[in-house]
Amino acid sequence: MSSSQSIEETVSVTTSDTAQLVSNEEQEASSSNFTQLNKSSDLQDSIEDDLHGSHGVRRRQPVQKIDPGSLNILSAKYESLDYDTCENHLLLDEERKRGYPFIVWKDIARWIIVLQIGVVTALIAFIIDICIEEFSKIKYEQLKKSVDKYVFLDKLYIPYLLWVLTNICIVFIGSMLVAYVEPVAAGSGIPQVKCYLNGVKVPRVVRIKTLFVKAVGVITAVVGGLAGGKEGPMIHSGAVVAAGISQGKSTTFNKDLKIFQYFREDHEKRDFVSSGAAAGVSAAFGAPIGGVLFSLEEGTSFWNQALTWRTFFGTVVSTFTLNFALSTYHGHPGELSYPGLLNLGKMEPFPFQFYELPVFMFFGVVGGALGALWNHINYRLSVFRIRYVSAAWLRVVEACLVAAVSATCGFLMMFLLNDCRPLGEDPTKVPLQLFCADGEYNTLAAIWFQTPEASVRSFLHDSMGSYKPLSLMFFVVCYFLLSTWTFGLAVSSGLFIPNLLTGAAWGRLLAIFIQYMLPQNSINPAKYALVGAAAQLGGVVRMTISLTVIIIETTGQISNALPVIVTLVVAKWTGDFFNEGIYDMHIQLAGVPLLPWEPPPLAHNVYASEVMSHPVFTLRAVENVGHIVEVLRLVSYNGFPVVDPPHVDDTEVPTYKRLRGLILRSQLIVLLQNKIFNENANTTWSNFNVDMNMFRKEYPRYPSIDELKISEWEKTYTIDLRPFMNPSPYTLPHRASLPRLFRLFRALGLRHLPIVNDHNEVVGMVTRKDIARYRVWRHLGHMGMEELLLSNEI
Amino acid sequence: MSSSQSIEETVSVTTSDTAQLVSNEEQEASSSNFTQLNKSSDLQDSIEDDLHGSHGVRRRQPVQKIDPGSLNILSAKYESLDYDTCENHLLLDEERKRGYPFIVWKDIARWIIVLQIGVVTALIAFIIDICIEEFSKIKYEQLKKSVDKYVFLDKLYIPYLLWVLTNICIVFIGSMLVAYVEPVAAGSGIPQVKCYLNGVKVPRVVRIKTLFVKAVGVITAVVGGLAGGKEGPMIHSGAVVAAGISQGKSTTFNKDLKIFQYFREDHEKRDFVSSGAAAGVSAAFGAPIGGVLFSLEEGTSFWNQALTWRTFFGTVVSTFTLNFALSTYHGHPGELSYPGLLNLGKMEPFPFQFYELPVFMFFGVVGGALGALWNHINYRLSVFRIRYVSAAWLRVVEACLVAAVSATCGFLMMFLLNDCRPLGEDPTKVPLQLFCADGEYNTLAAIWFQTPEASVRSFLHDSMGSYKPLSLMFFVVCYFLLSTWTFGLAVSSGLFIPNLLTGAAWGRLLAIFIQYMLPQNSINPAKYALVGAAAQLGGVVRMTISLTVIIIETTGQISNALPVIVTLVVAKWTGDFFNEGIYDMHIQLAGVPLLPWEPPPLAHNVYASEVMSHPVFTLRAVENVGHIVEVLRLVSYNGFPVVDPPHVDDTEVPTYKRLRGLILRSQLIVLLQNKIFNENANTTWSNFNVDMNMFRKEYPRYPSIDELKISEWEKTYTIDLRPFMNPSPYTLPHRASLPRLFRLFRALGLRHLPIVNDHNEVVGMVTRKDIARYRVWRHLGHMGMEELLLSNEI
Repeated sequence: MSSSQSIEETVSVTTSDTAQLVSNEEQEASSSNFTQLNKSSDLQDSIEDDLHGSHGVRRRQPVQKIDPGSLNILSAKYESLDYDTCENHLLLDEERKRGYPFIVWKDIARWIIVLQIGVVTALIAFIIDICIEEFSKIKYEQLKKSVDKYVFLDKLYIPYLLWVLTNICIVFIGSMLVAYVEPVAAGSGIPQVKCYLNGVKVPRVVRIKTLFVKAVGVITAVVGGLAGGKEGPMIHSGAVVAAGISQGKSTTFNKDLKIFQYFREDHEKRDFVSSGAAAGVSAAFGAPIGGVLFSLEEGTSFWNQALTWRTFFGTVVSTFTLNFALSTYHGHPGELSYPGLLNLGKMEPFPFQFYELPVFMFFGVVGGALGALWNHINYRLSVFRIRYVSAAWLRVVEACLVAAVSATCGFLMMFLLNDCRPLGEDPTKVPLQLFCADGEYNTLAAIWFQTPEASVRSFLHDSMGSYKPLSLMFFVVCYFLLSTWTFGLAVSSGLFIPNLLTGAAWGRLLAIFIQYMLPQNSINPAKYALVGAAAQLGGVVRMTISLTVIIIETTGQISNALPVIVTLVVAKWTGDFFNEGIYDMHIQLAGVPLLPWEPPPLAHNVYASEVMSHPVFTLRAVENVGHIVEVLRLVSYNGFPVVDPPHVDDTEVPTYKRLRGLILRSQLIVLLQNKIFNENANTTWSNFNVDMNMFRKEYPRYPSIDELKISEWEKTYTIDLRPFMNPSPYTLPHRASLPRLFRLFRALGLRHLPIVNDHNEVVGMVTRKDIARYRVWRHLGHMGMEELLLSNEI
Repeated sequence: MSSSQSIEETVSVTTSDTAQLVSNEEQEASSSNFTQLNKSSDLQDSIEDDLHGSHGVRRRQPVQKIDPGSLNILSAKYESLDYDTCENHLLLDEERKRGYPFIVWKDIARWIIVLQIGVVTALIAFIIDICIEEFSKIKYEQLKKSVDKYVFLDKLYIPYLLWVLTNICIVFIGSMLVAYVEPVAAGSGIPQVKCYLNGVKVPRVVRIKTLFVKAVGVITAVVGGLAGGKEGPMIHSGAVVAAGISQGKSTTFNKDLKIFQYFREDHEKRDFVSSGAAAGVSAAFGAPIGGVLFSLEEGTSFWNQALTWRTFFGTVVSTFTLNFALSTYHGHPGELSYPGLLNLGKMEPFPFQFYELPVFMFFGVVGGALGALWNHINYRLSVFRIRYVSAAWLRVVEACLVAAVSATCGFLMMFLLNDCRPLGEDPTKVPLQLFCADGEYNTLAAIWFQTPEASVRSFLHDSMGSYKPLSLMFFVVCYFLLSTWTFGLAVSSGLFIPNLLTGAAWGRLLAIFIQYMLPQNSINPAKYALVGAAAQLGGVVRMTISLTVIIIETTGQISNALPVIVTLVVAKWTGDFFNEGIYDMHIQLAGVPLLPWEPPPLAHNVYASEVMSHPVFTLRAVENVGHIVEVLRLVSYNGFPVVDPPHVDDTEVPTYKRLRGLILRSQLIVLLQNKIFNENANTTWSNFNVDMNMFRKEYPRYPSIDELKISEWEKTYTIDLRPFMNPSPYTLPHRASLPRLFRLFRALGLRHLPIVNDHNEVVGMVTRKDIARYRVWRHLGHMGMEELLLSNEI
């Protein structure tokens, strides 16, 4: 039987109408050989199209020319992770051999790895924090000296130029690293981690090189005076640490420690990465519970109690280690007063009255609306960047420009708005006199001459009269625009702190206004600054319960929970009315096929036969090596249904398309690489003495088919796929609805879902992109379903 | 075609070996009629066995005589909930008709319902709290008067008898209600809610009658002086409230409000019940985040962001409403200082040092060990109860006995241990002088003459020298035994408070010991009392992250989180080394087929063909009414695969067992009840003008088949099942492994999973019990898998 026959058989499925899939007819294979197949233009076209990466070639040709910056395009570039265990004979064999002690050991190993993840993540956070703190101190002290010196000489342009130049130089370093060494390290990394946890393979996102660029990048971004924070990148760092430690090998250093090999699969790795991200949140905000909730909210589809508990252990270890390290560094060992990078200072519990709830709701509305505006401006900027600022050098120039503008804004503000206050009340580290009277300092200079995080602290804790309303107003507008411009630059920085800072500023502004309206009451500015900060951040990121818990944990006051919660609920509702959260926006811009939480509503009339890709390229249970090589070269699919070998004698029932299993491209590659070939029918897999480690050794980056050397002689051999394939993949009938496909796919974290007809014959294949194409939209109270386009361009 | 033929066909599957299921032979039905079938003893036996409720009759006959109190028996009585949407034509029709506005409206309705759930749950909590407080006050004031009067006359037996009699009378009322009116209201209700959320239909657990008995029962239990708390029952109450409100009808009052009909399905109802349970936790402990985590930890398989966010809204509403109501009642309206029923008082943040961590770990070990002991004693007692105290009147007598013993313990302790303290330091409401000098009061009397919750507050907040070590020691032993005896009585009460009380007492005892060892240090007893309380409770219930958050929220101090977390982690590890958590123990004793989080390890070699039940009773797509009635009467199955009608002309391929869909018993009953019969082939379902509400009207309690009147004439009609059946149920091949079955079943909340062969022919059916039978055990560091027995006896 020639290798072409199988392809022919499969392709013939396409030609039959999907509505008639139940029928049995016309599966008799023609006897055309492979050369004929190549000449058959129709088939060739379909295979050619296929090489562009889409699974369904007939109805879904990737669009080649698209509008950059559209939110309605899915990129065809992203591959999916596979959380389904391949229960082949090798796995069963391993289970039998190792028994329960191995299960117990694996369980202990998981706890040990999570312990290590917590400690290492915390240490990285510690190093980043110390570097930022020390470098910032040096920078602002030098600037202060310069200002103090030249303010009398009326040559303030000299410290201004110094400031601008310092910022540009520092940001230049980080930006070069990001733009040229590892572009995936740009931004906060939260969208990328979110995609990874959702099951999308984002290239290079959990490599050690990325971690290095991220760490250096975030230091330069914050020290360089950009409106960015170090908290988001910590979450990404935690994820990289987890991937590195749990796999016991590094691609960057080309080093395999040969430990924890049994965790080398997508499912285990994802579990550790979600623990790592949680540990990162925990280190960033001192929020162990918030960290767990973050990774649950962003990453989980199936709740797993043991994993949650282990993740919680990791977050506690992480915050404790960081606390211990920072406390020791600051000279109070054992006091444990630095639980996270973001230290908002000890908030007092503020009493609030029942009738204040509408005020908090109003703050929520303001935060939601401002957040939606922030997102919209950032979206427009991102589209502009995609269109016109895509070259690496342009991205570096833009980053330097923003650095210069940031310094200019700060300088103009403290130069023009002479907001003075007596020294001593607010002990900033670098008080600047500027044009103030002796014994006074410029409050705006104090805000600008420190890290954004310290500025949030100032807004939260300073007394009522510390800032003039006009200063605050200018600051809000300026920082709002700067921060939305900064997010998406080729630097590593997050948006938590800038938004908290903007929100705290307008919260304080509103507090001054309320005080003015109700002069007989004594208004607590801290309360409104905190609520404003929460509202602004909530309006931008739209995270739900995890953000609430993070803010509560960061402020260390659970008695302030109710106002924060009310504000966040309203801010999310308001923001969602206008547009999507900033992370989802960036994910959509990148065209990542993220699966949402729920299937689109009213989609029960979309059937699997419409959703699926076909033709499907199938392999026989015992397959010719040459044919496998041919198929792997021809198409870029990653999963191949294994079907029954033809029963030549069985004239009654043609059974050769009956699904017997599913085999992955990566498995085929490893089989070819290790030459697990049968020269004759008597060679069985047990003769090869192989085990699961053969596959684990290559995980997660397998060679491509073109890198393999298969001789012409070997191509006449066969491979018995049965010991290696997944013998019972989840399937659905062709009349299953889209929500049914979606639930199965999402809940079990599948990568391939064969679609069968009533006779259990494979008629199509559903992958992540096929499902992610159907997306629900909600806008200004309306909703509907849209079908996205697939493209190779983004 | 006679109705017997189908049964014959189906039964014939049994006779073929499961290993040979792939084969196509011997499906030709014999022409025996139904009388012959009845005489065929073999078949009759199998059907007879079947009537006892088990699905798989051949290999799993329900054991009739079992050892009561065994943990290795699954009860055959429990039915499963069904979270899979039946996507039949009626649903599609409804979707098409109503469109997106309906989706938006349903979404708004969900928020409104959750708001109501939060408010009503809080009000119930408020009523229970006020009743307990006021009645307790009256009781203890009367007792105090009596003691004060008779202590001089040396006739202390009079107040003692008064105490005992009061307790007995009060407990008698609650116990009678529980034992005779609604036994499912006994205990805390947490195991029952846990089972419900896991997908098990626990009869009558969410009825309004249950709520009433629970509320009255918990008041009598706490006022009656039993060692029980009101917090667990609040969780159950919240669940009942949610079920009641969301369904818009009540079986107890036989009232259908005809609102929210579209939420009348297992999936929607479960979502609301989980929100309600969360609202209950929130009201009980003032812990909105803890409530969300509780319902996630106990109820969720698939994480749903929207549901989580809505649940969070409900918990916030609940704690806020309760806070508002209690604050108003106590005369501080608007101050919002009563967030939950359990009010541990404002804890000060206690500073702790790095080197104290081992001490907290030690507390964890003690708590874990004591908790395991508590569970073991309670288990033994429960087994004893199952064997010898099963009659209702005996259960009432036992409850009264415990009430008397509790009073006796308290009396003896304050009579024999003369632990006096000067008045005024600890202002209890009812200070008793007893044998103390003038101006002093008996500290133990103060502990006993208040609700257990107030006693926890005393142990947490009193100063170091408040209690003699000997008093504490006696109290710990006494209360430890009393509380383990109380849990499982025929009264409604929870175990949170008693265990917190015991733990706080031994924590304080250990604090005194540490103070004695380190006299130069000033030991804070509150710290150790809190950690002890957490350790003891954690050792008993073994909840993970939700308990941690609940304790942190209840104490209102997030800065104390780390010691509590460390202690709880160690307590859980220690306890799990010995036995299971108390809730799981009781669930196992009741034989509830609860599905754990993970499939049993090393079970990849257990195949669906071993797990499944067979024979399967199938129906044809257009089926004879008489046959349906016959089948429904004969077997107690709840799901029937619908198979292709025989193609009489098709001699080549016998297709009549090909799976076409799945129909539920409840659907068939409704079809029969509404007489959706075809008299001839031209009658289609659209002629009947039916919609989904036909099914919703009866949900969740459908009539039994014997209640329906079907005339002999009607039995000759047919029903076209196709518009009503689920056309694409999830299926798995017979060679799928147990973990694969498990994951599909658990993640998607299935009730029936048809098992098919390679030709898509139904060969078996897997239900919850089939999977729950395989259970992993861990004991003293070892693990393995056991296969449970099925029984109708428990």
